[in-house]
Amino acid sequence: MRIVDRYPAVRACSEALIAPLSAEDCAIQSMDDASPAKWHLAHTTWFFETVVLQELVADYNLFNSDYPYLFNSYYNALGERHARPQRGLLSRPSLDEVLAYRAAVDQAMLAQLPNASNAFLRLTEIGLNHEQQHQELLLTDIQHAFFCNPLHPGYCDNAPMVDQNPSSRRWLDMAADLYQIGHQGDAFCYDNETPPHQVWLNAFQMASTLVTNGEFQAFIDAGGYRNPTYWLSDGWDWVQREQLEHPLYWHPKATQAFSLRGDQPRAADAPVCHLSFYEADAYARWAGARLPLEAEWEVAARLFPDENNWMGQVWQWTASPYQAYPGYRPPAGPLGEYNAKFMCNQMILRGSSAYTPTDHSRISYRNFFHPHCRWQLSGLRLARDL
Amino acid sequence: MRIVDRYPAVRACSEALIAPLSAEDCAIQSMDDASPAKWHLAHTTWFFETVVLQELVADYNLFNSDYPYLFNSYYNALGERHARPQRGLLSRPSLDEVLAYRAAVDQAMLAQLPNASNAFLRLTEIGLNHEQQHQELLLTDIQHAFFCNPLHPGYCDNAPMVDQNPSSRRWLDMAADLYQIGHQGDAFCYDNETPPHQVWLNAFQMASTLVTNGEFQAFIDAGGYRNPTYWLSDGWDWVQREQLEHPLYWHPKATQAFSLRGDQPRAADAPVCHLSFYEADAYARWAGARLPLEAEWEVAARLFPDENNWMGQVWQWTASPYQAYPGYRPPAGPLGEYNAKFMCNQMILRGSSAYTPTDHSRISYRNFFHPHCRWQLSGLRLARDL
Amino acid sequence: MRIVDRYPAVRACSEALIAPLSAEDCAIQSMDDASPAKWHLAHTTWFFETVVLQELVADYNLFNSDYPYLFNSYYNALGERHARPQRGLLSRPSLDEVLAYRAAVDQAMLAQLPNASNAFLRLTEIGLNHEQQHQELLLTDIQHAFFCNPLHPGYCDNAPMVDQNPSSRRWLDMAADLYQIGHQGDAFCYDNETPPHQVWLNAFQMASTLVTNGEFQAFIDAGGYRNPTYWLSDGWDWVQREQLEHPLYWHPKATQAFSLRGDQPRAADAPVCHLSFYEADAYARWAGARLPLEAEWEVAARLFPDENNWMGQVWQWTASPYQAYPGYRPPAGPLGEYNAKFMCNQMILRGSSAYTPTDHSRISYRNFFHPHCRWQLSGLRLARDL
Amino acid sequence: MRIVDRYPAVRACSEALIAPLSAEDCAIQSMDDASPAKWHLAHTTWFFETVVLQELVADYNLFNSDYPYLFNSYYNALGERHARPQRGLLSRPSLDEVLAYRAAVDQAMLAQLPNASNAFLRLTEIGLNHEQQHQELLLTDIQHAFFCNPLHPGYCDNAPMVDQNPSSRRWLDMAADLYQIGHQGDAFCYDNETPPHQVWLNAFQMASTLVTNGEFQAFIDAGGYRNPTYWLSDGWDWVQREQLEHPLYWHPKATQAFSLRGDQPRAADAPVCHLSFYEADAYARWAGARLPLEAEWEVAARLFPDENNWMGQVWQWTASPYQAYPGYRPPAGPLGEYNAKFMCNQMILRGSSAYTPTDHSRISYRNFFHPHCRWQLSGLRLARDL
Repeated sequence: MRIVDRYPAVRACSEALIAPLSAEDCAIQSMDDASPAKWHLAHTTWFFETVVLQELVADYNLFNSDYPYLFNSYYNALGERHARPQRGLLSRPSLDEVLAYRAAVDQAMLAQLPNASNAFLRLTEIGLNHEQQHQELLLTDIQHAFFCNPLHPGYCDNAPMVDQNPSSRRWLDMAADLYQIGHQGDAFCYDNETPPHQVWLNAFQMASTLVTNGEFQAFIDAGGYRNPTYWLSDGWDWVQREQLEHPLYWHPKATQAFSLRGDQPRAADAPVCHLSFYEADAYARWAGARLPLEAEWEVAARLFPDENNWMGQVWQWTASPYQAYPGYRPPAGPLGEYNAKFMCNQMILRGSSAYTPTDHSRISYRNFFHPHCRWQLSGLRLARDL
Repeated sequence: MRIVDRYPAVRACSEALIAPLSAEDCAIQSMDDASPAKWHLAHTTWFFETVVLQELVADYNLFNSDYPYLFNSYYNALGERHARPQRGLLSRPSLDEVLAYRAAVDQAMLAQLPNASNAFLRLTEIGLNHEQQHQELLLTDIQHAFFCNPLHPGYCDNAPMVDQNPSSRRWLDMAADLYQIGHQGDAFCYDNETPPHQVWLNAFQMASTLVTNGEFQAFIDAGGYRNPTYWLSDGWDWVQREQLEHPLYWHPKATQAFSLRGDQPRAADAPVCHLSFYEADAYARWAGARLPLEAEWEVAARLFPDENNWMGQVWQWTASPYQAYPGYRPPAGPLGEYNAKFMCNQMILRGSSAYTPTDHSRISYRNFFHPHCRWQLSGLRLARDL
Repeated sequence: MRIVDRYPAVRACSEALIAPLSAEDCAIQSMDDASPAKWHLAHTTWFFETVVLQELVADYNLFNSDYPYLFNSYYNALGERHARPQRGLLSRPSLDEVLAYRAAVDQAMLAQLPNASNAFLRLTEIGLNHEQQHQELLLTDIQHAFFCNPLHPGYCDNAPMVDQNPSSRRWLDMAADLYQIGHQGDAFCYDNETPPHQVWLNAFQMASTLVTNGEFQAFIDAGGYRNPTYWLSDGWDWVQREQLEHPLYWHPKATQAFSLRGDQPRAADAPVCHLSFYEADAYARWAGARLPLEAEWEVAARLFPDENNWMGQVWQWTASPYQAYPGYRPPAGPLGEYNAKFMCNQMILRGSSAYTPTDHSRISYRNFFHPHCRWQLSGLRLARDL
Repeated sequence: MRIVDRYPAVRACSEALIAPLSAEDCAIQSMDDASPAKWHLAHTTWFFETVVLQELVADYNLFNSDYPYLFNSYYNALGERHARPQRGLLSRPSLDEVLAYRAAVDQAMLAQLPNASNAFLRLTEIGLNHEQQHQELLLTDIQHAFFCNPLHPGYCDNAPMVDQNPSSRRWLDMAADLYQIGHQGDAFCYDNETPPHQVWLNAFQMASTLVTNGEFQAFIDAGGYRNPTYWLSDGWDWVQREQLEHPLYWHPKATQAFSLRGDQPRAADAPVCHLSFYEADAYARWAGARLPLEAEWEVAARLFPDENNWMGQVWQWTASPYQAYPGYRPPAGPLGEYNAKFMCNQMILRGSSAYTPTDHSRISYRNFFHPHCRWQLSGLRLARDL
């Protein structure tokens, strides 16, 4: 799809996501890691205004000169900003004002796009991918916020669910070799997926399916959360400190879990999700296997494209910390902060989830979160040495 | 005014207070000590439903069986409750639902009141006073929330202000004697204002006026915030830890202060407010005086009723910790938790403020907050030994 | 005893206290509130050096110019100081060096005392009382430190114990009247015991005995630690947060308690101790009584001097927050910081304990600690309204 | 050297390290990450007693049955243990008792070693390497403890220093290739250095010398600590929160730094040390280079063995998070906890330092610390892409 066509389509998707929400719903922030839906709507708009329009359109006037302060997320090069943990205090601007902001920026963008320069189009494409990332975050964040409400309201009766039953598991054999990973070709990717490069992999096996709720329940039943043998040291400290006994959103005393559809039965053969890296890693060790390296995941996904569930169910924790690829150079300018400065203390997840916009997934895509995070749709797939 | 008449009047006042606010505004909570406006509206209603209707009306059905959990504040005798710091996450029930809750409880109350028992009327009267307390808190809490918004929105252009200029100061002489303090007579008071009792006071002088912004500015200019000599030990630790240099809501670099009308000039002769006890106490010591005891305040206010500003401008910190009066007994039942369990680590303020509902102030009224709190309209009046 | 005789006697007592301790023992600090024994030895010496010798002896040279920084406790007027929580890191100066410091200061003091001015003698007397306070703290602090050692070492086999069995309880009747409290006469007292002043007391009864371990066990057995009804709000939060179920030093599963003699049987009829104010207050409420006001305690102790256990077993929490007496003025100079700046957020204890030096107790003595503190020998005596 | 000869030599080294220290010095713990010298002496002994003697000698009796609880560090498989942050409270057992513990275990070990099984010798070898690790930690920990003492005492006048002047820098060229890294052969190594494996490396250059104090000063002078451009996001948060402006132990206002010899001049051409990973990484970015991967470091060190300073001055932060090598399996039993469970959230350092025992360094050695840690002798060497 051409950018000029894709722009209104992606932007409309964001607004469609808040259809089931009230203005009050859109304003709440349930933890520092999450943001209000209204903030997601505004921040993605700020991106187009600041990174595209203000940079490239000579006489562009800001919609509101306070908004860059309010809606910058973390770009030091783009100025001071509102403290992240206080995003939930922004009852003003109202949701209506934020929607008006979106409309005004959309108008300015659409006026430019038909005759836009390549630079303009390239930045717009980044902005659209950025917005799609926030569409997924908007859903995970509102799910967390609603979970904090004792009423456990559902977001929407036909919201996306992790529910696809994996077929029976096979082990995909991969030979030792020098493989190439990373993004190739002209299609869009983020800077952190490049450069494509070689990596030596020993022979290994990759599971054809995701680990399920039922399998994870067996880990719990076997005392998995109470046995330090299976856990990394930091993970064990975390489990003890937080007194955890099951994945996020599971009801401790029922076979239910909280989802965007509210409390729902938890199917034994559906992929387990809302795991931290620590839990995924502990499970894999208990199961006599291990998490795959991100390179193993990418190589296997390329070679066995027909296997189920690489994409679209749950993000899959890997054993790989988030690092720069060999020869990686962050882009010049503020977008150099997009990905590069987070390359520490985070773990890579591969694939995509039921909340990921359909055209926003790639085999080379590198998602990353701190190892204790579990409000994303994060599950796992096993690997083992051959 | 008869209770049956007073009920709708007080209830309407609460709803009038949110007229300048959006549903989004009503949902936010800017710190643990504060609550969302919507929560104030619901909690005061819960009080009537739980303490009056459910207790005294045989066949009363709860409006919503989840609400007692959501809107109980701190009454252990009345069951489990939602965690205080998470009140700002309750986008559901919506403001409209809370207003419907208010309407339903009002209807039930108004059906009972014309023929209500004395017990019913007595509890209703407590409920109305309780609601008036929350009317003041609703204003101080929304002021704090709006201050946390970098846009510094005003609540309302004609909101109450601390602005009355005190006349020139005189020192009111009080002889040493055995005085009586505490509430007497049949009019309403809270349990903690009783029993009336004798207290011996040495001779003292009480200032006829409140300390002003200009006077407090002189303390700042003299290095008051940087000199431990004037401060209690806990206060000095607090000032250092929080790196404080002026009262809450003052602009460090301008003669403005944030109020319910937004940022406004700070009149030199208006009473200073938004002080913690520590700041009030340090100021008094710097000024060669001291804070009055609460008994001194009450006795002076009774004897010099014509003096300005006992009431209606700012609450006045006293040197008295919040303790039970001699012979005090908390009421039986859940209302025993209303006041008694807070008699530790808090300091008494006397008078009333510009935000206090007019018919909700008494000379015997005992307000109390932790010594570091300063989001209330809290100022001071000096006293000294004779 | 004359000061010139008392000086070496008191100083020798401090050194006798560390006879059972190794240099390693003397260096440890088990919590911010406590100090190492070596620090107590040095700080009390610093007091004589800085407050007496340096002020009043013209050509006095500091023993070591680093020591004032290391051994000042909290006197802002006497300069910067080492952070309190880091006192346990001072392996240097060694215990031997601190003892040499003591010897040198003693020599200087003893050279002056025979012909000392009244001012010198008065400051010396304060210094000796100050040292006696620290003698008690040295014992409570080493008890806490040894309790933190899993080996639970005893300090000394014949260390002081809380063990005196109270006689059977009687209720001492006190009539309502205007009483005088506070220190009178020329004997030594701290500034905070003055001025003597009148206070009106309602009629009340005071228990002739202390509350015992057996009585407190009954409170525990009745679920006292799990029922919020008995607790102040701040106390209940503290109990929940710390998950407390019994007094400090009690073994949860045995009728033993840790003391300076190590783990010892806990006699049912011995006074209960190591209670916080919150626990003492909750017990009193459960027992249908209350804590006495400090004025009630002092008046009763004066009128019934023969009753047992006012002194010498456990400090007794009162219902009185620590405040200035009417007309109180802190002394000029650094000693103004001795007591005055702590008059906030602390509660008064009266009497004295088994660890208090015999000649360091007075009926007018006002001890004070934060309401959650319980590493002192703190118990209670009941009172009730008549 | 044969194990039977090496055992007494290594053990004697530990005891030699405390020769300049008093018993008081040996007891202090200045932060959670550090341990008292006495604890290091006891813990290394506990290792031999628990992992070797108790496992392999049929009738072995523990020296003291309390010691395993006191001196286990982090082995969940070997039972409960004393809380790490409270190691500084263990005045008992005394230093003398710990030395007696060492003597007794040495006697038992030396009785076995002449006729020991291979299993016994293998575990003993691990224990000796373990002890050598703690010898280095003992020095870094006492340096930190002495730095916390305002007197800044030196440990020893001829203590090891980072002082070797690097020769002028050259860039060592390395071609792209498939290299082998990891430990090979029969000599001792830790499990985490295995298995040896292939890794593809792009062409790169490695600096022949370490970054110096003078070079790092230039980074500071250029505003390096105040410019977020150079920092990883977590590093920038850390710098802001801790308000850092220079490496640990540097005097802010003098060209001195604290060392084991006390405060010493800081030579401009000596290797910079006491950097966190964040600082090392920021410096490298500012200098237009990058940190090497651990594989790059190992390959370069093997190919250019004559270059200065791979070993013996400062540990060198790499860009590699601490992960398992491909095919890595932790050993069975408690030693499986030795290295494996820390493979998360830590960064690899390569080389060795001036405090590392001479025979305890290897090209394949993998040291690891959390990225904010800087009390080790941690510096850096630059690399760059070709």
